Amino acid sequence: MKVKDLGEFGLIDKLTQILSVKDPKVVVDFGDDCSCVNVEGKLLLFTGDIQLENHHFIKEKINPEDLGWKLVSINVSDIVACGGKPKWGFISIGIPEETEYYFIEKVYNGMKKALDMYGFSVVGGNTTSSEALILDMFLVGETDRFVPRAGAEKGDLIFVSGYLGSSRAGLELLLMNKENYEGFEINLIEKHTKPSARIDLQPFIKSYANSCIDISDGLVGDLSHIQKMSKVKIVLEKNKLPVDPDLEKFCKKYNKDIFDYILYGGEDYQLAFTTRKENKDKFKNCFPIGYIEEGSGIFLKDKKGVKPLKSKGFEHL
Amino acid sequence: MKVKDLGEFGLIDKLTQILSVKDPKVVVDFGDDCSCVNVEGKLLLFTGDIQLENHHFIKEKINPEDLGWKLVSINVSDIVACGGKPKWGFISIGIPEETEYYFIEKVYNGMKKALDMYGFSVVGGNTTSSEALILDMFLVGETDRFVPRAGAEKGDLIFVSGYLGSSRAGLELLLMNKENYEGFEINLIEKHTKPSARIDLQPFIKSYANSCIDISDGLVGDLSHIQKMSKVKIVLEKNKLPVDPDLEKFCKKYNKDIFDYILYGGEDYQLAFTTRKENKDKFKNCFPIGYIEEGSGIFLKDKKGVKPLKSKGFEHL
Repeated sequence: MKVKDLGEFGLIDKLTQILSVKDPKVVVDFGDDCSCVNVEGKLLLFTGDIQLENHHFIKEKINPEDLGWKLVSINVSDIVACGGKPKWGFISIGIPEETEYYFIEKVYNGMKKALDMYGFSVVGGNTTSSEALILDMFLVGETDRFVPRAGAEKGDLIFVSGYLGSSRAGLELLLMNKENYEGFEINLIEKHTKPSARIDLQPFIKSYANSCIDISDGLVGDLSHIQKMSKVKIVLEKNKLPVDPDLEKFCKKYNKDIFDYILYGGEDYQLAFTTRKENKDKFKNCFPIGYIEEGSGIFLKDKKGVKPLKSKGFEHL
Repeated sequence: MKVKDLGEFGLIDKLTQILSVKDPKVVVDFGDDCSCVNVEGKLLLFTGDIQLENHHFIKEKINPEDLGWKLVSINVSDIVACGGKPKWGFISIGIPEETEYYFIEKVYNGMKKALDMYGFSVVGGNTTSSEALILDMFLVGETDRFVPRAGAEKGDLIFVSGYLGSSRAGLELLLMNKENYEGFEINLIEKHTKPSARIDLQPFIKSYANSCIDISDGLVGDLSHIQKMSKVKIVLEKNKLPVDPDLEKFCKKYNKDIFDYILYGGEDYQLAFTTRKENKDKFKNCFPIGYIEEGSGIFLKDKKGVKPLKSKGFEHL
């Protein structure tokens, strides 16, 4: 049997069983945005995310500063989704020896800008030579309340922290290789190449969210983790989904279904979370998009009624 | 300028300058076997090490269980070299989708055996698809005394924890692709493919070593870090260097200079450390191989006198 026959989640299921954890200091192991361990009463969060040449980026097409920025941001996003602040990063880098130094320097400049903006340091690293460029970051965060995927409760409201689908449109625009892009197209491309983690929401997620996930694989795909792990039913209200005006222009110009982008587009690095109704005013500039009920599945409610949504989240294998 | 023109250490110097650290909780950042941060009075150690297909191993030639074992062991070795115990691992894996699942399962079985033997857990991970197999491990350890490379003092004795050069001989034997190997050759190959970290020495390193490093790049290469960072002179006594009887047979059979292997062979994952004379009996089954003096450089003392040793440690770029 090949790895691709198992799919990403099938593979992860099998491998995590082999590594079963018995340490009582481990609060959360596999299956959430971060792992969590208890160190002298402090909850430490661990996460890691990688950017691989030819898989996550094309060297000739990416601004190396953006690459460094993105590597840091996607890791911070996982920490914030669990209610934490990023504290210490560790960078593992594989470099083809023919790489121009200026390229790597710019990647690190981009990392440094992101580190300064999010307020933490990379404290160590490992370097090796490789065929293609590998940038693997490991990040330790801290919280005093772990916000899991599994905490959504009946009656909770569901929020998203911003526009969705813009990053996928940006990627498609990039791949068109056009000579000239319109203003709104450049905006969409930037949302793909330079996403920001919502560290501004961290204090509120930590204090008021019952469950949270960062949207890297698409709204429905990522909410399905909250849905399954919380054992609840999710109802999204179509008319409440926030619509990026730039994405609207894109979909008009290229004749695309905007809800396909909003519901299934990936890599926006916004947060989806649930909170009790009485806390709904704690989250400024976030959008309530639905609610949690008893039951199971994810549904979309519009004028015509309520219909189940297919989960077609992005698998990485 | 290309990355290869800078060399590994030149590159690391430049990149770590970009990421300069200002966090007062960071006790040690770059340039040691681990980074170290202070969390509520506990010293946490961070390290990471990678095994890349076609760089660190050839898939068709390696036993996948050994690969998993080695990945864990080389990370543990760094933690022990700083006086620490391994606590929580995080595994980042890149897998070509055509990979047979049984291969990955065996890698994980090997990891699990090592985790059980060293007494800690892998608590999280990240999976992506890739061209070649990537196994990147991050490891968090704990200590109440950080043992640095920079702590060697005049009058210290230098110890190694075991035979050196055996792993390099094992690698050369593997690359010979012979149909049949003699018993001593199989032993040497195993020292290359399945090294063990010296976790048994951790309590003594933590309590009594002034400086320590794990020998991954060769005795002289790695001692040169202790020498430079401690600003001392190192004198090795040739007649005290422990000689692996299997390596002796290898050098006789293939007409090799055994001291070239002992002084410059890499990947043994033994420890080199210094300690005050009065603590010399604390280290059972370790070998005193020299001493620290005021001055600089690394020297080899034999019947003919004392001569400087060239540093030709292994660079990974």
